[in-house]
Amino acid sequence: MLTVETLQSLAKPGENRETRQPTKSVLLVLDGLGDLPHPEYGFRTALEAASRSHLDQLAKEGVCGLLDPVAPGITPGSGPGHFALFGYDPLAVNVGRGVPEALGSGFNLQPSDLAIRGNFCSVFRENERIADRRAHRPSDERCAHLCGLLQQVSLGQAAVYVQPVSEHRFLLVLRGQGFSPELTETDPQTLHVPIPEARPLRPTARLTAEVVNAFAQRAYEVLQPETVIGGNGAAYPEERYGVLLRGYGKYPSLTTLPEIYGIRCGCVATHPMYKGVALLVGMDLLGDAHQLSEQLAVLEEYWDGYDFFFVHVTYTDKAGEDGDFLRKAAVISEVDALLPRIRALDPDVLVVTGDHSTPALLKSHSWHPVPVVLWSRHCGRDRVEEFTEAACAGGALGRFRGLELMPQIMANAGRLEKFGA
Amino acid sequence: MLTVETLQSLAKPGENRETRQPTKSVLLVLDGLGDLPHPEYGFRTALEAASRSHLDQLAKEGVCGLLDPVAPGITPGSGPGHFALFGYDPLAVNVGRGVPEALGSGFNLQPSDLAIRGNFCSVFRENERIADRRAHRPSDERCAHLCGLLQQVSLGQAAVYVQPVSEHRFLLVLRGQGFSPELTETDPQTLHVPIPEARPLRPTARLTAEVVNAFAQRAYEVLQPETVIGGNGAAYPEERYGVLLRGYGKYPSLTTLPEIYGIRCGCVATHPMYKGVALLVGMDLLGDAHQLSEQLAVLEEYWDGYDFFFVHVTYTDKAGEDGDFLRKAAVISEVDALLPRIRALDPDVLVVTGDHSTPALLKSHSWHPVPVVLWSRHCGRDRVEEFTEAACAGGALGRFRGLELMPQIMANAGRLEKFGA
Repeated sequence: MLTVETLQSLAKPGENRETRQPTKSVLLVLDGLGDLPHPEYGFRTALEAASRSHLDQLAKEGVCGLLDPVAPGITPGSGPGHFALFGYDPLAVNVGRGVPEALGSGFNLQPSDLAIRGNFCSVFRENERIADRRAHRPSDERCAHLCGLLQQVSLGQAAVYVQPVSEHRFLLVLRGQGFSPELTETDPQTLHVPIPEARPLRPTARLTAEVVNAFAQRAYEVLQPETVIGGNGAAYPEERYGVLLRGYGKYPSLTTLPEIYGIRCGCVATHPMYKGVALLVGMDLLGDAHQLSEQLAVLEEYWDGYDFFFVHVTYTDKAGEDGDFLRKAAVISEVDALLPRIRALDPDVLVVTGDHSTPALLKSHSWHPVPVVLWSRHCGRDRVEEFTEAACAGGALGRFRGLELMPQIMANAGRLEKFGA
Repeated sequence: MLTVETLQSLAKPGENRETRQPTKSVLLVLDGLGDLPHPEYGFRTALEAASRSHLDQLAKEGVCGLLDPVAPGITPGSGPGHFALFGYDPLAVNVGRGVPEALGSGFNLQPSDLAIRGNFCSVFRENERIADRRAHRPSDERCAHLCGLLQQVSLGQAAVYVQPVSEHRFLLVLRGQGFSPELTETDPQTLHVPIPEARPLRPTARLTAEVVNAFAQRAYEVLQPETVIGGNGAAYPEERYGVLLRGYGKYPSLTTLPEIYGIRCGCVATHPMYKGVALLVGMDLLGDAHQLSEQLAVLEEYWDGYDFFFVHVTYTDKAGEDGDFLRKAAVISEVDALLPRIRALDPDVLVVTGDHSTPALLKSHSWHPVPVVLWSRHCGRDRVEEFTEAACAGGALGRFRGLELMPQIMANAGRLEKFGA
C-alpha cells in the first residue's frame, strides 16, 4: 500500500517547465456532485441537465473517471469524503465531525478536548419520549439563546464550551483529561423512544461516558423551563427540550499536506466543517466568501501565495439533500459559467469532482461513485467528451479510490520523484 | 488482499484443452511503452504513430486495459515496474538496483553482500565540487580501467568487488557482515556541491555508512592521479574523478514464480537489470540475444522447455528517454512486425504491455498508466479495436494495479484453482 511515508519520501518541488515557477493545482469540489437519472426530468442526472460547455471542454482536454470516496458501496459523510480527496485513508482517519466543525468555527481546540456535535431535540413532557429529533428546527437566534443556557452547565470533571451552529445544531467541547471519543451516540435516529445514554465502547471510555451523560442530564434540567418554539414561530407546550449528542472526536495527529508534499495549501470554503477538515490537513483558510463568485475572487486574490487550492462548493449538496433537481443543475451551471475564471489563472493542474454523490432523487448522500476530470498539460488522453457520470465511466482514470486522486494531482504538478531505480 | 500464499494455494498444472500439453504464456514487455500526445507529431502518441496492424488485431481478439505498475500517480523505476508485472507488490519488494544488476551481470551475490550502483563523476580540483555527475560519460574501456583502480581499494571490514557496467556506470559489492541497505545515496542529483557522505537511515546502518564512506574516500584517493577524459576523448585537466553511490541493496528472500505457480520460467532479455530481476523471481536466463529478432530466435529455440516466457524489449524506453519520438514509434513498429512469429508458436496466453510509461515528450519515466492487451482462447471480449492508450482506457481489463496482471495470466493459462467451494 502507498503510505504517507512513501509519498513523503518521493515529494519534490514542482516547477512549470516553461515559466520555472512553482506549479499550482486547483481542486474544485462540488459537494454531492454525483447524481442519478431522475424519472421526472427525462431520466437525466442533474449533471446531464446542467449547462456544461466549459466542463465538457475540460473533459475533452483532460482525463476522466469515477471515484469511490471511501470504497465501492459505501456512502461517505462529508468528512470522510474530503479526507479521501486530500489523499488520506478515510477508513483510518475517522475524525468525529465535532472536530472539524469546532476548528472551522474558529474554536481553539486542544489535543485533550472532546468535541461533540449536538442537536436540540424535543421530548413529550408526559412520557419523556422523543417528539422531534430537531426540536422543530428552531431559528438561529433561538439556538443561540438555548446555547447560552447550556453554557451555564458546570461539571466537576470538565470545563464546558457550547457554541451555536445553526437551527437545532450546536457544538459542545468538553475540556478535561483522559477523554475518549469511543462512545455510542445518544441520537437514536428514531422517534417515540427515550433519549438513550452514551455507553462506552471500550473500558477506557467509561469516565467519558459518565461526563457526557452528566452533561446531557444537566442540559435537560437547565432547558426545562423553556417553551419549545419551532422555526416557524409555533409553540409546542406539551414538549420540552433535550439534547442529542454525536460526532465525538479528538484532535487527530495527521501528517499535513505541507509536511507530505512541501506545498502551501489554501482553502476557499464557506462552511465550518470543510474549513475544519482543511485546517486538519494543513491548509490556510483564505478570505471570507459566501457566494461562489466571491469564492472565485478569493482564489484570484491569493493566487500567487499558494501551490494548492481547495475550492469547496456547498450548494450542490444542499440542493440534492432537498431533492431539488433543478436547483442542483442550476448550481452546476453556475460553476460551469465561472470555470473560465479559474482557467484564466493558468493552473498547472485542475481537477473538478465531488466528495460523494447526493442524488436529488434520493434526497441524501449515496454510495454512487463521483465523476472526476483531471486536466494538466501532461495528463494524457482518453475519449471522454462530456463531463457526465456515464461518460466518465469510460475515461482513462478508470474507477478508483478517492485517496488515489491526490498522488495523481501531485504527479501532474511535477511534485513526485521516481520510485526505485 | 490477494497474497502470494493464497495464489500458491490455488496453483495447479495448466493444460491446453485440445493438445493436453502444458499451457504456455508469453509476457512481452516493451520498456517504457506508454506515451503522451506529442504536439510536434500531430498530437499522437508513439504507439498511435507506430505501425500496429498485428497489435491492433490482438487488441480486437483480446481484452485491453490500463495498468498502474506501482500506484496511480507514482512514476516507477524499471525494477519496481517489473516486480509488479511478475505479480509482486513493488512497495513491499523494493530491492536496490545494485542487486538485479549484480545478478544480471553474472556476479555470484551472497545473502550478506551489499550491492551498490556506482557512477564515476568529476569534481573541480580547485574546490572539490561536482563538475559532471557522469564524468563526461567515459568510454567503456576507460570505465574498465577506472574500475581496475577501484578494485585496488582494500577495507578492513569488507572485501571489495568492482565491475564495470558501461560508460560512467559500475557495480560495487561489499562483502562482509552486518551490512544494511538503509543509507542515504551519495548522488546529490545536482552540480556545484561537494559529494555528500552516506548517512545511516537507521541506527543499525551506522557500520555500513562508515564502510561505504571509507570506500568512497579511498576511491577518491586512488583515482586522484587520473586525468578526466570524456567519451569524445576530450581531457578535463582542471577536474578529478570521484564516485557517486546509490541503489544499495541486499539479496531479497522472495517466493519465486516456480515456487508459487509451479511453472518453468524463461527470460529473454538483453540487459543486466532485467536479467537480474528475472533471476530473483526464479526465471532461467535464455540465450544471449542483443537484437529483437535474435530474441525471437531464442524464444523459438527454448519454446518446448518452458511454461512462461518474459521477453523484454529495451529500445522503446531508450528512445523515449532520448526524446526520440520517431525512433520509439519505429521500435514499436518493429515489434508489431515480429508479433506473428510469437503467435506462430501458438501460445495459450499472450500479453503485451510495458513496465511504465516513458513519453518521448517528457524524456523520462512517467506516472501515466501503461496500455495492456491480454489474449487467450478464453479471455472474454471488449470493444477495443486498436492498441493505443486512449482505446485501452475503455477496455474490459479496466485500470488496474500491475501486480494484478500475473494472476490473470495464470488464470487464462488454466493454472489457478477455484477459491473456496
